[in-house]
Amino acid sequence: MPSEDPHSLSLLEGLHSTPARRYLSAEPIPDDVVRALLDAAVRGPSGGNTQRWAWIVVRDAEVKRQIADWYREGWERSYGSRREQILASDDPQGMSAATFRAAEHLANHLEEAPVWIFPVLLGAARSANPRLGSSIYGAVQHLMLAARAYGIGATLTTLYAAHEDDVRRLLHLPDDALTMALIPLGYPARGRWSQPRRRPLDEVVFFERYE
Amino acid sequence: MPSEDPHSLSLLEGLHSTPARRYLSAEPIPDDVVRALLDAAVRGPSGGNTQRWAWIVVRDAEVKRQIADWYREGWERSYGSRREQILASDDPQGMSAATFRAAEHLANHLEEAPVWIFPVLLGAARSANPRLGSSIYGAVQHLMLAARAYGIGATLTTLYAAHEDDVRRLLHLPDDALTMALIPLGYPARGRWSQPRRRPLDEVVFFERYE
Repeated sequence: MPSEDPHSLSLLEGLHSTPARRYLSAEPIPDDVVRALLDAAVRGPSGGNTQRWAWIVVRDAEVKRQIADWYREGWERSYGSRREQILASDDPQGMSAATFRAAEHLANHLEEAPVWIFPVLLGAARSANPRLGSSIYGAVQHLMLAARAYGIGATLTTLYAAHEDDVRRLLHLPDDALTMALIPLGYPARGRWSQPRRRPLDEVVFFERYE
Repeated sequence: MPSEDPHSLSLLEGLHSTPARRYLSAEPIPDDVVRALLDAAVRGPSGGNTQRWAWIVVRDAEVKRQIADWYREGWERSYGSRREQILASDDPQGMSAATFRAAEHLANHLEEAPVWIFPVLLGAARSANPRLGSSIYGAVQHLMLAARAYGIGATLTTLYAAHEDDVRRLLHLPDDALTMALIPLGYPARGRWSQPRRRPLDEVVFFERYE
């Protein structure tokens, strides 16, 4: 539970201390807080202010259970099946053992997160535009940062996506809609608001040209 | 020029008051501020923490002039050629006249913005994945929010993209790289840090299912 005033955290501090949170408690999130997060989300960028988006809030246990099963299929295919290999690897560019275990925990407990958000783009179902997400992922980041202000953890996931058609039907989305992510939200059960570790800036920032 | 302490703005206030800024002055941005913005950017989400990204900082007048010409081609094709129609329209889902004029100003003055940032994804040049941007646009939003803290305006643009191959060559990017946006940065010359106007939340938020 948050003990602090959500308005007390500074913007710069928030940007530097919002890692993915994958250990989430089942404690409910009040509706007015969910609305506040979404009101912050929609202030993010929308190309040409077209706002061809929808935000689906899922709390229904049966819907969550079904999608969590599909998510676990995706987890197993992409990561779970490589468990020993990933845990044994020390490739600094790869997933760390701690991140693997946290992501595995999330896959096994996804439906316990009290609130899920699906950001959706309308008219995008057939898009093959790799920059499509510029119309919504900034707003998704607003959602996760607003959650941070309220002491709520989140992470951006897409591992359900092989079942896009099934998810679309289950959520009664129009045929032309594309779900862009699944964001499980919950008060953190473990871990802390630490700065994400990243490669040194000099390795990823280039002046004037790449090389 | 910023008069306030960059650390004084709250996270929630920043999320609610960071519109696209398209009237930008030519006043230089100090290097240490540019680095601070990028250090905030890379704390954004990176799928599996792979960080297959590069951030190109462009200040060279000749490079900016060349890309600005390509940008204006894209502007003309997508918006400029429909000038009278857009300015006469009162479609609430479309671009407002004020936004059109601001975007037109940006197209005509793009190279005056003192610093440009190209966020780049490596290994993505042939991607047709509409969710590709989930690996970088959250970090791009961090960049724009950090800029807000420092009193620097920004907007996410992609109108140069028809010249992707030309831009890739000009920036000496590897063949497998994809530029994901162009973010012009500058101290605002006009306008203010107001809350972006959006459709009412009840029109875009749905509980459990879309309809």
